[in-house]
Amino acid sequence: MTKKNVIVAQSGGPTVAINASLAGVVDAAIQSEQYETIYGSIYGILGILEDRLMNLSEKVSTVPNFIETLKFSPAMYLGSCRYKLPDYEDDDATYAFIFNQFKKYNIGAFFYIGGNDSMDTVLKLSHYGEQIGSDIRIIGIPKTIDNDLCITDHTPGYGSAAKYVAASILEIAHDTFIYSVPSVTIVEIMGRDAGWLTAASALARNAYNTAPHLIYFPEVAFDKEQFIADVKEQLSKRNNVIIAVSEGIRDKEGKYISASTATNDQFGHSQLSGTGKCLEYIVKESIHVKVRSVELNVLQRCAAHISSLTDLNESFELGSRAVSLAENGLTKCMLTLNRTSNQPYEISIGTADIKKIANEAKSIPREWINEAGNDITDVLYTYMAPLIKGEPKIAYADGLPTYLSVEHLDAN
Amino acid sequence: MTKKNVIVAQSGGPTVAINASLAGVVDAAIQSEQYETIYGSIYGILGILEDRLMNLSEKVSTVPNFIETLKFSPAMYLGSCRYKLPDYEDDDATYAFIFNQFKKYNIGAFFYIGGNDSMDTVLKLSHYGEQIGSDIRIIGIPKTIDNDLCITDHTPGYGSAAKYVAASILEIAHDTFIYSVPSVTIVEIMGRDAGWLTAASALARNAYNTAPHLIYFPEVAFDKEQFIADVKEQLSKRNNVIIAVSEGIRDKEGKYISASTATNDQFGHSQLSGTGKCLEYIVKESIHVKVRSVELNVLQRCAAHISSLTDLNESFELGSRAVSLAENGLTKCMLTLNRTSNQPYEISIGTADIKKIANEAKSIPREWINEAGNDITDVLYTYMAPLIKGEPKIAYADGLPTYLSVEHLDAN
Repeated sequence: MTKKNVIVAQSGGPTVAINASLAGVVDAAIQSEQYETIYGSIYGILGILEDRLMNLSEKVSTVPNFIETLKFSPAMYLGSCRYKLPDYEDDDATYAFIFNQFKKYNIGAFFYIGGNDSMDTVLKLSHYGEQIGSDIRIIGIPKTIDNDLCITDHTPGYGSAAKYVAASILEIAHDTFIYSVPSVTIVEIMGRDAGWLTAASALARNAYNTAPHLIYFPEVAFDKEQFIADVKEQLSKRNNVIIAVSEGIRDKEGKYISASTATNDQFGHSQLSGTGKCLEYIVKESIHVKVRSVELNVLQRCAAHISSLTDLNESFELGSRAVSLAENGLTKCMLTLNRTSNQPYEISIGTADIKKIANEAKSIPREWINEAGNDITDVLYTYMAPLIKGEPKIAYADGLPTYLSVEHLDAN
Repeated sequence: MTKKNVIVAQSGGPTVAINASLAGVVDAAIQSEQYETIYGSIYGILGILEDRLMNLSEKVSTVPNFIETLKFSPAMYLGSCRYKLPDYEDDDATYAFIFNQFKKYNIGAFFYIGGNDSMDTVLKLSHYGEQIGSDIRIIGIPKTIDNDLCITDHTPGYGSAAKYVAASILEIAHDTFIYSVPSVTIVEIMGRDAGWLTAASALARNAYNTAPHLIYFPEVAFDKEQFIADVKEQLSKRNNVIIAVSEGIRDKEGKYISASTATNDQFGHSQLSGTGKCLEYIVKESIHVKVRSVELNVLQRCAAHISSLTDLNESFELGSRAVSLAENGLTKCMLTLNRTSNQPYEISIGTADIKKIANEAKSIPREWINEAGNDITDVLYTYMAPLIKGEPKIAYADGLPTYLSVEHLDAN
């Protein structure tokens, strides 16, 4: 049997585990008996459209510890894109071009590591491939810090972001507790439509730290008066109140609390900022107390130095498994993580029909949030806790983590 | 000789190394032949005024690994204050009370770990003690992430904050480089009057990363038109431009840039923007390019999980040395770090007259900044580089760093 080649690409927003999945793909493909050269498509699907492919097999043999270092390097080694494929009924030229590229590079399998929108690309390519009778395997590997993909128990990238959020809340608590004057600190956390990452703030609680004292989710309509009452009640019990809030909270009409600054990206998602600032001003006006807001911002999705080993290992395993499943003929699907046991925590890898994943989003079940809508329940705590565990051994040089060079991207 | 007791307190804003100095004091005092019980004053000097003292000797014998864990725990284990002592010519009752407390607790030495304002307290207590003929040793141990204390080569706490800033810039660079579309990312860094911490962003540069591409300091008057020209020039050379800016930049009239824009949120509150946000608006208005601002905020002074071992070791050593110097009769001074060699990096501990430290601030020498005022020079790089080196071994449990409990503070 003549060996075929593979293409792998990364798409959507960064996480610190998406390179671990790439490392898994590379690691398995390099050992594969069916596959020869591994190409990385630069800037997601755009790399195929623009003929910008990188020979990853070569990197493995020339860069020392390539796979190990790739595993813990943040964001996308291959770059990303926010490109949405046209409907092929409207425009099949793009599809014809892509499958022509596959033919040109003798491709046997295409792996796309990404979130919701990236699975839309997997779905469309799968459909088109089916229509033209292609036998190229097309497999989606999930990632998103938002944890909002359906079917999979959780998403690669979420555990590390959750760990960053929990560690930050714990450190902010230490920072806040030092003064004896009453204060309110509001921490804004990413998650446009789902509060999974904001919920992870609760993992900061331990024997001495009760923060965060209030948590607000996109899943529960935000009520300004109730918020003020909540904060006042907390201030009657303790000196320093710490609040975790999702960037995506909305009022009962569905209007974003930060709506005054919202703009739309090309997928029609609102780009939000300033929810924490907004709550800061409510507290300032309604309660006369020292108040500060902190926006965790992009570091929650790129601070690889405090990633979760559980997350990195699972992400690597998904990449690796994608290759072996492709070898066995699997196509038109996304890999999933299924939790088979919580104590001890165990997962197995499954697959899901891509149709059931693409363009769908998973919110926190309402019953996993407390009745008042301002804290998590034990069941949500139990769900999240294992995902942040374990620390990777990251090499440092001159005081900084030694990530893999991204000199092949256009940035510098 | 009857043994005396000691009091130690912490004051001012947090750093991740200030507990290392406390650990050094405790470690040396516990082994001392002159000193018996070590008291910690809760909330800085306020603990003495309000009679809130904690028995640290007891903690050492009851809390497992107390000194080791204290060394890497962030912020102030004893709490802090922003309390300025009155002039004793106006009101010596406060001083009489403090020295009465010293007598009541049989105190032989008082150690105050803090920044500029805290050294003012050390100075005033020293003067008063001298006046009443007290033989109590009063010693200041420096700390501040701002690195703006005079005489000392650098300040404890600066190296760790600098490491956090450099690591964050590096990770933000990875996050930013993934898209092929042009973008500008502005990172706002603490330092109201001195640009030392902002300068540390340059330590993120390595074989593949040229970011930050522009750096703006409080030491150089900010010119909006020159800034726009700088950014345009950078965008002509690369896709993704990353800018580090101090929160304290001012225009040539000395007016803070952060004061120049205000926006309204949806509740109609006027919001005073941060400096980063302000530059974001300037870019948005003047250059049509994707732009984002990130405020590192309090995490740069409390993210102990990525502290500099060099910084923690020096801070510990200062605390320890303060005790032995007090035993030898030293008083009315602040300890300093003197750099005796840069390659290899070596420091010695010295002392400085407290009068020359208190209420003075040290800016970056103008010649350590490039002529254009938008980057550092090699001499500044060489000065900063050794300070961020080394990683402490921090114990993790359930995915999070295990810091020392602060349940004795009022927060919870």
